[in-house]
Amino acid sequence: MNFTQKWHNAVHQKNSILCIGLDPAEPGQRKQDIIAASKLDWCLNIIEQIAPYAAAVKPNRKYIKDLSRDQVKQITYAIHKHHMVAIIDSKITDIGETNDAALFHAQQEGFDAITFAPFAGNMNEAAAQAHARQLGLIALVLMSNPEFEVIKNATINGMKAYEFFATQVKDSNAEGMVIGAPSSKNHITQDEIRRVREIAGDKIILMPGVGAQGGEAKEIVEIFGDKTIANVGRAITYAQDPREEARKYKEMLNNIR
Amino acid sequence: MNFTQKWHNAVHQKNSILCIGLDPAEPGQRKQDIIAASKLDWCLNIIEQIAPYAAAVKPNRKYIKDLSRDQVKQITYAIHKHHMVAIIDSKITDIGETNDAALFHAQQEGFDAITFAPFAGNMNEAAAQAHARQLGLIALVLMSNPEFEVIKNATINGMKAYEFFATQVKDSNAEGMVIGAPSSKNHITQDEIRRVREIAGDKIILMPGVGAQGGEAKEIVEIFGDKTIANVGRAITYAQDPREEARKYKEMLNNIR
Repeated sequence: MNFTQKWHNAVHQKNSILCIGLDPAEPGQRKQDIIAASKLDWCLNIIEQIAPYAAAVKPNRKYIKDLSRDQVKQITYAIHKHHMVAIIDSKITDIGETNDAALFHAQQEGFDAITFAPFAGNMNEAAAQAHARQLGLIALVLMSNPEFEVIKNATINGMKAYEFFATQVKDSNAEGMVIGAPSSKNHITQDEIRRVREIAGDKIILMPGVGAQGGEAKEIVEIFGDKTIANVGRAITYAQDPREEARKYKEMLNNIR
Repeated sequence: MNFTQKWHNAVHQKNSILCIGLDPAEPGQRKQDIIAASKLDWCLNIIEQIAPYAAAVKPNRKYIKDLSRDQVKQITYAIHKHHMVAIIDSKITDIGETNDAALFHAQQEGFDAITFAPFAGNMNEAAAQAHARQLGLIALVLMSNPEFEVIKNATINGMKAYEFFATQVKDSNAEGMVIGAPSSKNHITQDEIRRVREIAGDKIILMPGVGAQGGEAKEIVEIFGDKTIANVGRAITYAQDPREEARKYKEMLNNIR
């Protein structure tokens, strides 16, 4: 079963397109600190709480570097126990064998998909390597941070960079793309999203930046439907009541599906 | 002391510009496998063997994901015990707080510098964050893999992408750049290297791809002198006698310094 099928199964079983982003802050990064010694417990507790309402969990690799192999496996085990898919947000961007080492470990740890940054240019190779390790590859195409605007508008082979990356997604058979939710507060436009859809076809969309009202999510869900993985991070995980927040987000998303 | 000063101290003390890349293969990746259980021992053994001849060691993050926090610390401790600098090859490329989480962990683990891929566009922020954590930032500017050619020739703000990245290195005060050794077998030209020098100024250059004859290294060492970190990986670490190979590389590099 490939990643797209796994995602559809999870959406069906959970009646949700909600994904929970796990990014437990390091000391000093946020007002509420996660104490390093209890980071695993924090992750497992969040997974238990949000499980009834989410179809995916996406730990961010950069925040869990201090967890052991066994601890990361406990996280993916808990995600799968609740019939969700496990995505590791690694943004790998290296030469072939090095990417493959990252994929090897992601597979060992029990993940279903991994994120990829198309900086080194080798998406074809990375997608083939990921598939050989039973992993879905989700490529960054339209990041929403302000500094990405200049990158997305670069010209590559006569097209805009984000169109080039979308072309690579199509050609490589990568399962998915990261596209930030368009908003008046960022540089992503509906035209760009439609253009990416036109080029890459019907792909999984990992969409960070979903606000509580969901206005931004709507434009992507309208185009990609249940292929949209709607990621919400600290708005849920750092809420007073993560379970209740997850319930609200699930409902809000189901209203626009 | 900033990273550039640490590097110069190490070069002076070891009379070498050699850096050893640690990328212990996963099962099936190469003819000679490293057994997972002994990966730490393999790393520590290599460090002991090459210590008399190298000024830096660069573990690749993707290959050591199965090592615990304590094990990674043992590696940086061994590197520093032998008066070398420790560079973690992570190629981070994310939004600000996530990059900062990676930098937090790199600092906790005892590294002196980290590599950065300018895909997300936020080099200014990343360099400031790295410096606040006493880490040098080394940005990818000219990768030597064939697929990078189309990326380096992208047009950003009216210049070639590699020129844009070099401009960011200058503006951000990042310590260094990754530039592959130019060769008839890759797409990197001496003109490009001179252009990067012109834009970014006199920076640390992390240079992978040094062959046993060093012909490729010569062009970069001529321009950047002792600021060149000449990385050699498996040509030394997988040699029959890593100690003797490291000695030969050090001598070869000293002949062209």
